[in-house]
Amino acid sequence: MGNDSIVAELAGCLPGGEIVSDPGRLAAYRHDETHAAAGEPLCAVVARGVADIVATMRFATRRRVPVVPRGAGTGLAGGATATAGCVVLVLDAMTAIRELSADDMLAVVEPGVITADLARAAAELGLMYPVDPGSAERSTLGGNLATNAGGFRCYKYGVTRDSVLGLDVVLADGRLLRTGGRTSKGVTGYDLTSLFVGSEGTLGVIAGATLRLRARPAGAPATAAAFYRDAARAAGAALALTRAGLRPSLLELVDDVTLRELEEWKAPGLPRGAALLLGQFDSSGSGRAAAAMARLCADTGALATEVVTGAEESGRLMDIRRQSLAAVSRLGRTMVEDFAVPRSRLPEMLTLIRRIADRHGVFVATVAHAGDGNLHPTFLYDHAAADVPEKVWAAAGEMFRAALELGGTLTGEHGVGTLKRRWLRDELGDEGIEVHRAVKDALDPLGLMNPGKVL
Amino acid sequence: MGNDSIVAELAGCLPGGEIVSDPGRLAAYRHDETHAAAGEPLCAVVARGVADIVATMRFATRRRVPVVPRGAGTGLAGGATATAGCVVLVLDAMTAIRELSADDMLAVVEPGVITADLARAAAELGLMYPVDPGSAERSTLGGNLATNAGGFRCYKYGVTRDSVLGLDVVLADGRLLRTGGRTSKGVTGYDLTSLFVGSEGTLGVIAGATLRLRARPAGAPATAAAFYRDAARAAGAALALTRAGLRPSLLELVDDVTLRELEEWKAPGLPRGAALLLGQFDSSGSGRAAAAMARLCADTGALATEVVTGAEESGRLMDIRRQSLAAVSRLGRTMVEDFAVPRSRLPEMLTLIRRIADRHGVFVATVAHAGDGNLHPTFLYDHAAADVPEKVWAAAGEMFRAALELGGTLTGEHGVGTLKRRWLRDELGDEGIEVHRAVKDALDPLGLMNPGKVL
Repeated sequence: MGNDSIVAELAGCLPGGEIVSDPGRLAAYRHDETHAAAGEPLCAVVARGVADIVATMRFATRRRVPVVPRGAGTGLAGGATATAGCVVLVLDAMTAIRELSADDMLAVVEPGVITADLARAAAELGLMYPVDPGSAERSTLGGNLATNAGGFRCYKYGVTRDSVLGLDVVLADGRLLRTGGRTSKGVTGYDLTSLFVGSEGTLGVIAGATLRLRARPAGAPATAAAFYRDAARAAGAALALTRAGLRPSLLELVDDVTLRELEEWKAPGLPRGAALLLGQFDSSGSGRAAAAMARLCADTGALATEVVTGAEESGRLMDIRRQSLAAVSRLGRTMVEDFAVPRSRLPEMLTLIRRIADRHGVFVATVAHAGDGNLHPTFLYDHAAADVPEKVWAAAGEMFRAALELGGTLTGEHGVGTLKRRWLRDELGDEGIEVHRAVKDALDPLGLMNPGKVL
Repeated sequence: MGNDSIVAELAGCLPGGEIVSDPGRLAAYRHDETHAAAGEPLCAVVARGVADIVATMRFATRRRVPVVPRGAGTGLAGGATATAGCVVLVLDAMTAIRELSADDMLAVVEPGVITADLARAAAELGLMYPVDPGSAERSTLGGNLATNAGGFRCYKYGVTRDSVLGLDVVLADGRLLRTGGRTSKGVTGYDLTSLFVGSEGTLGVIAGATLRLRARPAGAPATAAAFYRDAARAAGAALALTRAGLRPSLLELVDDVTLRELEEWKAPGLPRGAALLLGQFDSSGSGRAAAAMARLCADTGALATEVVTGAEESGRLMDIRRQSLAAVSRLGRTMVEDFAVPRSRLPEMLTLIRRIADRHGVFVATVAHAGDGNLHPTFLYDHAAADVPEKVWAAAGEMFRAALELGGTLTGEHGVGTLKRRWLRDELGDEGIEVHRAVKDALDPLGLMNPGKVL
């Protein structure tokens, strides 16, 4: 049976979805933001509803065709990379927010809703959807769920998983599974919800979700910025804040390399050669807390500190952090890495990053969700390079191993995807890999769900 | 091979554990607090370390002997009930807190640590272990993890799962699996940690855990009590608090039946025939927040309100809630039930509980974690009854189905155990049961782990 007729068979199964087989349009569905090496898909299905997802998976099981689900393709680990002969299952057209309940503090959403759109809809009800990945204006909730996305406010509000009450999942064979529900607590059976969150499309397709909303913080935000001679000192101050019991809603670090690029690009006046620690407080008493942070930072050797109150001024300081990647990206191609260490090891890890980068002769600019010990070293390489240069991978690999040795993890929030599989056993161990494999085989015995990712 | 020689074989495998086969001592290991119908175990193993757990599971797999793990036996769903010919694996002698880290805000514990002992150890460091089940002075962390225990402070701090960073799990065949780690974030592979938490010993034995600690609240607690004419009105006020954005750290409800028993027993002066809503605030500004709650309660028809500040006075009010079960238990035997509904349906569910209890002619006194929509109707029956009377089960079953119809769940925090299996399919559906079975078979192919529980 030729490709055309098998695509025609799939088209005939779809109650509402659209088939994309035009090579030009299909190209847009082959990669996430990493542009990892991809195969040529059979076609894409743009799903319009759960029934399209069910039909696609039934077809896939019948015809033994692998399926690669994708949201907006903002992933940074190659998790949505197409494989040869696959059907790309495109979920970004399912954009309905089906329900918003102020009393039950929840939202029922389709997978293609843009993260920031839900945040805005919740805000109109006086509530908050707290998960705030850097890509919030472009990423979909389905993608956030598949990768267990993090972002800026995890220190106080947790990761995506902490905001999920229940899921609709279409399994590899097309069965529709509902996990969890509408209650804030529940222990009926295994936590399948958490199992699917972060499984990167390898166990099933997230076709809908019931998400927890929170009360919006009462006060106006206040933000403290403190500049240090280097990143390790800024990280040391983050630790001092923990010891003092000061708990911002976000605690971000921008290293001296990044800050220099920002200063040259669009923020003249930033202290040259300094690293920045940025803490935002959003509870009542936020101004007092930000002032206390600034005092403590001054006491721990900050070169300069600044405190601002209100959303607008806080936003201005946060822009330094938010524009960090753009400041570096203007110099060449970038690979944004992502790993985490226990909070206490953050200063040490920052020193190791610098040392490893220098030894390999690679340019690395680092930002970190300091409160979570989650680091994003960004590797810069030549615009002309077809692929990530080997010395970049060598340096990154050394950093991953160093993070593991400090009790850390290969990935804090971006996922394993295709790019980190080669280090997976170093973290999970033989037993961990075996158990992952057993769970995968139990839910996707034919290996059709997003093959080559994670495992 | 006779029982004696097989027990001798097991004894020979244990590096440090103790065999219990004396019928008198063994009797104490056959039940949890439900005293559900139990079988006669082969023997018990009191484990002294992970190596004993590994040896027991290797033996169990070799000899095809089922294993029932247990902590302190404070469970309320029959989850630790012995089955005929099983080995009871007793974990309450593994009581070491191996590490407490203020900087990484975590504790590394053995499974037999008493919940309240960890809370006290954390407090000495200026930190908090927030999970506070009613049995905290007797329950073990291993048992809390196996059931995903909840308790009083879930409304603000979440359930046990929300405080787990990583686990050591001994699998059915004796392999030692480490999940998660020491970082506050991590997405390397599937969330096996959450899969084992709440799996009630049916997927593996929790042999150790790394638990998240939190900053201790800065202020002194303040507590508001409001008395209403009935429980549904008190629940309506809980909803009004949510709408007003008031967020206590705990929000408890005691119905009029319970309050009457408390008043007669040891708290003369409590308003007769009233229901109580109790909110505690633990952040800075707690006094103001408690006063705001009392005002709002007065505006929503409270018969009387009271506001107290400080730990001691707050504790006095909380004692009303904490002694609720004892007040009812003095009248006969009790069965404490546990289910949850979406927050907005709490008033309706309380009305249904009363109606169903009256129709079946059973005595039911209800308390609830109102903030979570989690209800505990307590059924009272005759001291002389050998077993839970059929009309109690009939009424309870009707309540479970009503909770499910309101979008709720069979169990909010106690677990399925043996007692709720017959309603499991009503909540999970056919696909849910199939996926549970597939996961169970993948991790415990011989069906040796706590057979007859959950599934």
